[in-house]
Amino acid sequence: MNETARTYDVIVIGGGPVGENVAERARAAGLSAVIVERELLGGECSFWACDPSKALLRPVVARADASRVPGLDPAVAGPLDVEAVLAHRDMMSSYWKDEDQADWLNAVSVDLIRGHGRLTGCKEVAVQTSEGDTIALTARHAVAVSTGTRAALPPIPGFDTVRPWTSREATSADKVPDRLAVVGGGVVAVEMATAWQALGSQVTMLVLENGLLERMEPFAGELVADGLREAGVDIRFSTTVTSMAREGGEDGEVRITLSDGRELAADEILLATGRAPQTRDVGLETVGLTPGDWLTVDDTFRVTGVDGGWLYAVGDVNRRALMTHQGKYQARIAGTVIGARAKGEPIDDAPWGAHVATADHAAVPQVVFTTPEVASVGLTSREAEQSGRRIEVVDYDLARVAGAHQYGDDYRGRARMLIDTDRNTVVGVTFAGPGVGELVHSATIAVAGEVPLDRLWHAVPAFPTLGEVWLRLLETYRG
Amino acid sequence: MNETARTYDVIVIGGGPVGENVAERARAAGLSAVIVERELLGGECSFWACDPSKALLRPVVARADASRVPGLDPAVAGPLDVEAVLAHRDMMSSYWKDEDQADWLNAVSVDLIRGHGRLTGCKEVAVQTSEGDTIALTARHAVAVSTGTRAALPPIPGFDTVRPWTSREATSADKVPDRLAVVGGGVVAVEMATAWQALGSQVTMLVLENGLLERMEPFAGELVADGLREAGVDIRFSTTVTSMAREGGEDGEVRITLSDGRELAADEILLATGRAPQTRDVGLETVGLTPGDWLTVDDTFRVTGVDGGWLYAVGDVNRRALMTHQGKYQARIAGTVIGARAKGEPIDDAPWGAHVATADHAAVPQVVFTTPEVASVGLTSREAEQSGRRIEVVDYDLARVAGAHQYGDDYRGRARMLIDTDRNTVVGVTFAGPGVGELVHSATIAVAGEVPLDRLWHAVPAFPTLGEVWLRLLETYRG
Repeated sequence: MNETARTYDVIVIGGGPVGENVAERARAAGLSAVIVERELLGGECSFWACDPSKALLRPVVARADASRVPGLDPAVAGPLDVEAVLAHRDMMSSYWKDEDQADWLNAVSVDLIRGHGRLTGCKEVAVQTSEGDTIALTARHAVAVSTGTRAALPPIPGFDTVRPWTSREATSADKVPDRLAVVGGGVVAVEMATAWQALGSQVTMLVLENGLLERMEPFAGELVADGLREAGVDIRFSTTVTSMAREGGEDGEVRITLSDGRELAADEILLATGRAPQTRDVGLETVGLTPGDWLTVDDTFRVTGVDGGWLYAVGDVNRRALMTHQGKYQARIAGTVIGARAKGEPIDDAPWGAHVATADHAAVPQVVFTTPEVASVGLTSREAEQSGRRIEVVDYDLARVAGAHQYGDDYRGRARMLIDTDRNTVVGVTFAGPGVGELVHSATIAVAGEVPLDRLWHAVPAFPTLGEVWLRLLETYRG
Repeated sequence: MNETARTYDVIVIGGGPVGENVAERARAAGLSAVIVERELLGGECSFWACDPSKALLRPVVARADASRVPGLDPAVAGPLDVEAVLAHRDMMSSYWKDEDQADWLNAVSVDLIRGHGRLTGCKEVAVQTSEGDTIALTARHAVAVSTGTRAALPPIPGFDTVRPWTSREATSADKVPDRLAVVGGGVVAVEMATAWQALGSQVTMLVLENGLLERMEPFAGELVADGLREAGVDIRFSTTVTSMAREGGEDGEVRITLSDGRELAADEILLATGRAPQTRDVGLETVGLTPGDWLTVDDTFRVTGVDGGWLYAVGDVNRRALMTHQGKYQARIAGTVIGARAKGEPIDDAPWGAHVATADHAAVPQVVFTTPEVASVGLTSREAEQSGRRIEVVDYDLARVAGAHQYGDDYRGRARMLIDTDRNTVVGVTFAGPGVGELVHSATIAVAGEVPLDRLWHAVPAFPTLGEVWLRLLETYRG
């Protein structure tokens, strides 16, 4: 066992897309940077979330779209080629190898240390390398924690004995379970229920709440629930799991007891019950913080409660917006602001400035790749109500848009736009319906750009696209 | 034959989507309005353009998309169900009946006179009704001409003897010709070549220019040409037709002589060689204008060269932007400004004001529904060069975006963004690639909204969507 010591301008703990981007931006600012990663470079997104999940979902969504198109519909009535879908998913996950990402890191001159990094004090990180060595790192300017999250497993009796699926197994499994129980009703739950039901599982969703996608507009969850049910998913709302056990050994079935007293048998159970920060073992206690906590930050990503402003937390671990794209946005800003502070440059931290993540509060986009899709950005009507601002809610039935009529038969969807009536701007948009995914960036630009309504009237939607709903929403608001 | 006389605040000649919207907005401003329509209410768009053409193209595009998705691709390898596609097209064209639109007009209290309207002098219109009556109409405030365009047939020897297809026949035909010759390389040509080739025709394109979609960025036409060729279309560039004749009677084949001396036989020939204004027989001569001319207008749609400011020309007939959505935009503004002038209200005609169609100059979106799709808004690089403004061209290979990788195997596409470096705004965007259609409205909002680049950095594209190309374009520009 060797002990070595090294000094960098910036140390990044966690080499997912967020950590990679923090380091890259710090390098671009002329600082030296190192990433410490104990698993695969590229993180959850590349290997156990976005990439493999979308690879599983794309055929399902494309088939659903095609099945609504007259003249094409009979062709896609049959099942998917499961083997081909899983093989493609493996390819899209780079076969769980990270050489390409390591090459990229090398190309942008960021060092990589494979191992477990832990804070050991102010600007100090100790790495236990994969080879068993210890490296003592010192940061001249900043340490950024971007360790992300893991699945938060609920303390249901028996959960630790049934080998449950988390998002990782749900995205990387190479066998289709005959029966899959999904606990949860959020994004991971609905996406994985969509995928595995289409791949051949009989999926049962066990949902604590009385609806799906509870953080989004209610109609989104309703439309997704309709789609899941039509695909054959059994959704049970207001249902909790009181215990679970795998019977008959390793390959036996999972027996699940429900809050209504009923039992359910499944071959696998996916626990999609939220996320917890990966902070239990990164040395938070050495800098006065509590292991296992989320890391609270200011808008430039400095962790609150740590003196000297050297500790940053970027991405999911700060709980601001648990999405890859938003984490990368944070990373670009964090890397840039670390660079600016290191060079003593002025900090542009007015709202929407170059050094603050204003969009985290106002314009976080999200696309849920289900059938139908859901795409949203900014406030929901519930958040608007709580905000105390004067906001008007405008709804429109997407099926009435010519582009929807063209997109597919029996189109069902809905759009909602929230208008700040004092500022005359759009502060939130939700679309739910087939094909709406790419429409979200129009809303993101409108919300983040604070484009006045008067000007949005001059942004003409092309006919016949789904985007024409923009015109209908404006017309509805005008009354 | 009866003669009657009536007076309205506003007379609209031509009841396509544009005329309908002019009248509806004038009504909303409290004016009385009448539409004179000699064919079907709803115009080309509803019956012989957007609606039927998109109904023909949607199955082709959806099949092309599905054919690139592993696990789904074998299912869609077969041909389309032609009968189902044509039956659906008939339905999407409302079986060439306009009762629904007449009901809508009635609901918004706009009168309809079915017949041929002609100007007879200042604020005077004579209508020869379908029943043979004559109605003399007088406008208190305004007459709007929104008669649109017809196919411009080239004076090629024989063209009047072969019963050529125009956009009308190409969108409404109920038999698939074995061999279809398409003359032209613009939007109608490429869309109809795409549709009929997929429906079973062997399509040959005869293109005067050396590329397709010459008004767009060159890469758009190149990608569409690749797609057409892969579908089996024979494209011949720099080729003109010197003569044509139908041999062997009504059902005989069309023999086409080409500029290179070669001959081509086809069952039908589509002349997609541009549009001409429908102004030959609307009485322009009675108000000092020349029949057959395009009508030149100011930004509030008043025809130049006519005293008193009572004559408006709205939609395709003014040649500003030959697209339904842009015509409807013009119509909303024209109807509103007619209302404002009638009431003596102030006119908001500063750029981007409520009473001017600034977007006609700066932000006209267009989607071409081919495989791949093309979507553009604002300036092209050629237009930028001619503008004399300082504009930087930024390109990005769409295939490098994660969302494209997910969208389908072997994705090919490209994006171009034009930046006005003095104003720090985006002034033009072109996307070409599968699935880009709904992406265009993001660009339209950015261009029409004049959202500064600094702010666009805060408009985070959702991962993994095609929209992520926005981030890549910004990064490429930053360098």
